[in-house]
Amino acid sequence: MQCLRYQDGRLRLAREPFVDRSNEAVVRVHLAGICGTDLHILNGYAQFSGIPGHEFVGTVEAAPDDQRQWIGRRVVGEINVGCGSCAWCAAGVKEHCLSRTVIGIRERDGAFAELLSLPVANLLEVPAHVGDQAAVFTEPIAAACRILEQVALTGDHRVAVLGDGRLGLLTAQVLRTTGARVTVRGRHARKLAVAHALGLESELDSAASSTDYDVVVDATGRAEGLTRCLELVKPRGTVILKTTCHGDSSWPAWTAVVDEITLIGSRCGPFAPALRMLASGAVQTAPLVAGTLPLAEYASAFELARRELKVLFSL
Amino acid sequence: MQCLRYQDGRLRLAREPFVDRSNEAVVRVHLAGICGTDLHILNGYAQFSGIPGHEFVGTVEAAPDDQRQWIGRRVVGEINVGCGSCAWCAAGVKEHCLSRTVIGIRERDGAFAELLSLPVANLLEVPAHVGDQAAVFTEPIAAACRILEQVALTGDHRVAVLGDGRLGLLTAQVLRTTGARVTVRGRHARKLAVAHALGLESELDSAASSTDYDVVVDATGRAEGLTRCLELVKPRGTVILKTTCHGDSSWPAWTAVVDEITLIGSRCGPFAPALRMLASGAVQTAPLVAGTLPLAEYASAFELARRELKVLFSL
Repeated sequence: MQCLRYQDGRLRLAREPFVDRSNEAVVRVHLAGICGTDLHILNGYAQFSGIPGHEFVGTVEAAPDDQRQWIGRRVVGEINVGCGSCAWCAAGVKEHCLSRTVIGIRERDGAFAELLSLPVANLLEVPAHVGDQAAVFTEPIAAACRILEQVALTGDHRVAVLGDGRLGLLTAQVLRTTGARVTVRGRHARKLAVAHALGLESELDSAASSTDYDVVVDATGRAEGLTRCLELVKPRGTVILKTTCHGDSSWPAWTAVVDEITLIGSRCGPFAPALRMLASGAVQTAPLVAGTLPLAEYASAFELARRELKVLFSL
Repeated sequence: MQCLRYQDGRLRLAREPFVDRSNEAVVRVHLAGICGTDLHILNGYAQFSGIPGHEFVGTVEAAPDDQRQWIGRRVVGEINVGCGSCAWCAAGVKEHCLSRTVIGIRERDGAFAELLSLPVANLLEVPAHVGDQAAVFTEPIAAACRILEQVALTGDHRVAVLGDGRLGLLTAQVLRTTGARVTVRGRHARKLAVAHALGLESELDSAASSTDYDVVVDATGRAEGLTRCLELVKPRGTVILKTTCHGDSSWPAWTAVVDEITLIGSRCGPFAPALRMLASGAVQTAPLVAGTLPLAEYASAFELARRELKVLFSL
């Protein structure tokens, strides 16, 4: 199969045999999305080596004997695979299993390939009226839905999503379903215009602007984002941490103490509500797609993803 | 009056007239404690200029006409003074009033002086059977009590207090009143021996040790403390931030995201439960006192406070 392989700090197009994992489903990938985390992985984040990519939609091509009813179904897939025997797995929280693998991120090949392997338990069928170009966004929307499990947002809350990128525009749409007043704050006029087109309140982020948010989400993907979040949030407010940069970063920890800020690390989320938001139209994805390219044009695709919103691989 | 004055980066012994604030009480200080924050202030933290010191016990010597019943009472005092008219003050949360002053920390002279000024509303009378040497610890114990308002601890929780210093040994005593299993983790055999004498579980902190705590309190007073807290806490656990160092510091923010850690900034706390814990004997302070010196020996006092546990000024 054709795939992208990242090894020894270099990404290359490869053609190689697909390695089947017993007791898992084989999914033929239709579309795969490039995420900010993929860009960080190419900078050394998570010390990953293998086929990157963790956002996909595809069709089940093979499945273990007792799960053959999945063959032919159009699916998306949760990215964490637990050991199945630890306390975390027993509690159904495989994303914190200490022995977990994660497609395209941790010791498991990912979605920038014609085929990928995942346990059937990780798969969710995509409703017929949700197209591939929307369904491929399920994983990042699920990550935004995780915030709803961590903070009880209501119409009384003022929320800033800092960052007008892919994750910012999805997160803002997810959070506004709670009735909270959500503002996207960013630095790119053309991305803020997309936010506006999505009906989101948006504002060019400048040092002088409002600093009285109850909740601020760091969706900047930049290490410096947190410092700005601490300026924007009000005392005793909450900052949601979504940025995963490689290595250590610098922040004014003392301000979090003095203003008694709560910071909440937030990673993977539930796929079912994410699919429901796509099905209901509560989250729109079409305006985010900056381009759809074949794997062979991976260099252009990553270059585009560094500047623009969502870039998809078509397989 | 005699006092210590910090100005232009230099601490000196001074003799100067006491400046009365109208509508406030005048307290004659008996004892004042040196806190880790005071040491940071002498390194530039909070850009403070004036008389430092915010832990004290004393006797009210003068009070506004309608509050003269306070004269002669032995008191401790909450350190934040709000504007009295903002939403925070209206909510009784003067410690987050944006225009607040704070004795010895922010635009208000502190306790390393024979006399200090505070609104009567900030004062609490000390029960007769709580001696000065215990009462002078009320403020840092209150700061530890703040954690109880922020996290609901029970007997099911494993808690590490990282740091075997002044704040660590007080915090561990406060948190164990919840029934939680609390371990002090530190680097100083003689301070851990004090922890042991206080009946606290204690352990020399080493890289290899347990990393499965539900809650970890950073009471290290060092910028590097947070990184170690993130190693000790389990996924989805909570880190309480108590350290206020001057300037920015470095941390592996991505681990807080991947492990979905909640970090909670924690500053000043309620004095009433702190006094109750002193009155009941739940918190012991005598083993923490490393020395009691006159203001004139401030150089030795600060030198001692850098190495040992609590150092008091006797006035």
